[in-house]
Amino acid sequence: MKRTKIEQLMAFEVPAERILVKGWVRTKRDSKTFSFLEINDGSCLANLQVVADEKLPNYEEIRKLTTGASVAVEGAVVPSQGSGQQWELQAAVVTLVGAAPESFPLQKKRHSDEFLRGIAHLRARTNKYSAAFRIRSELALAVHRFFHERGFRYIHTPILTASDCEGAGELFRVTTLPPGERLLENDFFGVESNLTVSGQLEAEMLATALGDVYTFGPTFRAENSNTRRHAAEFWMIEPEMAFCDLQEDMDLAEEMIKYLANHVIDHCADDLNLFARFVDKNLMAQLGVLTGSAFERIPYAEAIRILEKSGASFEYPVAYGTDMQSEHERFLTEHHFKKPVMVYDFPKTIKPFYMRMNDDGQTVASMDVLVAGIGEIIGGSQREERYDMLATRMDQMGLSKEKYWWYLESRLYGSVPHSGFGLGFERLVMMVTGISNIRDVIPFPRTPKNIEF
Amino acid sequence: MKRTKIEQLMAFEVPAERILVKGWVRTKRDSKTFSFLEINDGSCLANLQVVADEKLPNYEEIRKLTTGASVAVEGAVVPSQGSGQQWELQAAVVTLVGAAPESFPLQKKRHSDEFLRGIAHLRARTNKYSAAFRIRSELALAVHRFFHERGFRYIHTPILTASDCEGAGELFRVTTLPPGERLLENDFFGVESNLTVSGQLEAEMLATALGDVYTFGPTFRAENSNTRRHAAEFWMIEPEMAFCDLQEDMDLAEEMIKYLANHVIDHCADDLNLFARFVDKNLMAQLGVLTGSAFERIPYAEAIRILEKSGASFEYPVAYGTDMQSEHERFLTEHHFKKPVMVYDFPKTIKPFYMRMNDDGQTVASMDVLVAGIGEIIGGSQREERYDMLATRMDQMGLSKEKYWWYLESRLYGSVPHSGFGLGFERLVMMVTGISNIRDVIPFPRTPKNIEF
Repeated sequence: MKRTKIEQLMAFEVPAERILVKGWVRTKRDSKTFSFLEINDGSCLANLQVVADEKLPNYEEIRKLTTGASVAVEGAVVPSQGSGQQWELQAAVVTLVGAAPESFPLQKKRHSDEFLRGIAHLRARTNKYSAAFRIRSELALAVHRFFHERGFRYIHTPILTASDCEGAGELFRVTTLPPGERLLENDFFGVESNLTVSGQLEAEMLATALGDVYTFGPTFRAENSNTRRHAAEFWMIEPEMAFCDLQEDMDLAEEMIKYLANHVIDHCADDLNLFARFVDKNLMAQLGVLTGSAFERIPYAEAIRILEKSGASFEYPVAYGTDMQSEHERFLTEHHFKKPVMVYDFPKTIKPFYMRMNDDGQTVASMDVLVAGIGEIIGGSQREERYDMLATRMDQMGLSKEKYWWYLESRLYGSVPHSGFGLGFERLVMMVTGISNIRDVIPFPRTPKNIEF
Repeated sequence: MKRTKIEQLMAFEVPAERILVKGWVRTKRDSKTFSFLEINDGSCLANLQVVADEKLPNYEEIRKLTTGASVAVEGAVVPSQGSGQQWELQAAVVTLVGAAPESFPLQKKRHSDEFLRGIAHLRARTNKYSAAFRIRSELALAVHRFFHERGFRYIHTPILTASDCEGAGELFRVTTLPPGERLLENDFFGVESNLTVSGQLEAEMLATALGDVYTFGPTFRAENSNTRRHAAEFWMIEPEMAFCDLQEDMDLAEEMIKYLANHVIDHCADDLNLFARFVDKNLMAQLGVLTGSAFERIPYAEAIRILEKSGASFEYPVAYGTDMQSEHERFLTEHHFKKPVMVYDFPKTIKPFYMRMNDDGQTVASMDVLVAGIGEIIGGSQREERYDMLATRMDQMGLSKEKYWWYLESRLYGSVPHSGFGLGFERLVMMVTGISNIRDVIPFPRTPKNIEF
């Protein structure tokens, strides 16, 4: 008999005489003549209540079932009297697939996030983490759907690279030389090679051929920081659009955030409800603001003025010409505007070489999207498409024009205005779930000294 | 005015008074009183014919336009008389966006694949590569659609890992230590870290929590080989299913290959036609076999007997207990069965530790899917879910039970039969396009000494 997933069963409109369910025992209660098993198979948040009668031939075995054991149950789907759900399963056959000894760490009680990080191989069997990973999956699909509906092409840019797009340092080196060996000419690529921090430069090459493209892949930062917002390995979404300026870039960013939040609200109601109840009481209100407000758009200079006049006491000083810190970003979006904010036209001195110089010669056509609870969730810009301006910027910032010859050359042949942005996927998952630590939205997170699983 | 993409324009049902198109000049022909521009914007294979009349104020500039230049054209969409297409654009305004000097390497003539690999930043502006990358995009979306329709969850398994799933060696090391330095305790993770060769072990942890899952991400092999089938960085799709045996695993593999081939036939007709005409005359027939045949399923022992009796002269000897070479695989699928073949139950001696031992004690529940032109496109297995059997295999094959404690422990708590496979995404793109070199289906391929872009 083909297995029915619990998610399917929950949508039944009429009872069924005989179906087969397979899953893991979450809890068991015994009455005098029955055992009630709560079974979860990961297809949805809900457990299925299985009623096992004492007349079953292996009733003794059933009474010994413990939390974590895997079972297969055949039986009838009947209206449930007391489980709080529409259906329950009247067991005809209960088969033990795999037992779970008493040492199974996920007994029915509340475990700390930190404890669960230590058993990342098992934590997806809890309500919270299975819900988080189902939402993560649904969000990833929504990303693809959003772009596909708009005629974007999905591209894969290289993970292994000899360039450093952001000039940010903090790179992981990749090598096939034995530890201690340093003769680059014997290395796999023959030159120093790193893990990518962004696929943007390559995405630009494809946007100026295919039109609208996007990447969705892993990126890396070897930052030795242990904040709840940073991981060494994370997934990033980077759209890049030919014939597109900064205004249109901001339009797409706003449209995308709203689309993704709405998608989760529409498609992940049960899982979302778990987070709204137990993780962030304010979650549904926040998602309402996100989907229902026009995002505020202000120049960087104005953002700085607002922060300076705010009277708020910040840990880091506010000054024109410096990067905004997370506390500043959150002040703007959470306290001042009380909705998402797009800050644009940052000073050129704090931005990478590839951003398009504005006519003032001082600022570049860049933008950050700030949201409550997270701060910056998107960073983007119009790219410098003018050959001479780009070459000058590269010289000023000490980038090798020989190394990036292909990037520069793309401005020589039919160059066009183009723009794009990067959206950190984990921050997106944090935004829609209210989970506050990035380690809890990635199945197997990578942070300093943490690579066990 | 909002820009219309050429793909949209080609689907117009009636003429239009005024639209705006932006793209790159592919060719230009001049008559006495007109210039004809062929414009491509990457949204589809087709060029749009633009008719520019000598009465246009900047007609002198238009006559000087060269291949590769970017333009914006406003005008009327009218029935085309001679372009072989339904519509052409009668230009009212032609604006030069970015010129292209005569040195633009993609002049209208046939270029060798090797030449184009040297200009990977520009080659997506050719018909062949833009078509390949559009098909690649469409295939990736079809992968997600296939799994989503079947209730699978998309998961991200780690790229940075301290394990070596296949035990195959050939790993890229990842480090933040300066070249020559070897003190691991100062390294980012404090232990030897590598780029993943497979997300399977982690995917198993999630399958035994969420049910059916799949990965779709980059994987790496530091193999110093320069064949047309191997790249150092490639994308892999790895479904993993709880409560699933080898037969069901093979069912899914066959269903998936057919679904993906059909999807491309249905959604990429124009691009596919390019490959059928210019790259592989046999392509449509091959795709017909792929989608129309029941895949042959034979045990490894029988495959070896067939090869031994074939009378064919192979470069590598055929012998029970050795791996099949590409020539053997292709003989089976191309010459003997003339359709896709699934070989299963390989000797345990040539397979990794995690595959489920068959009752004969000699073979494991493994399978390879072989297709014409490629050879092996899928490799999969039922996983060993029995704790004692797995522990014994790990000991026999010298794997550290301490290092893989979490993997082993998953067999202790509610262990279930489960299976999965890996599908190389680039080989899939090669299969549906007939492109014979893996370097030509990845935008920026990575092979030994090749990391320029």
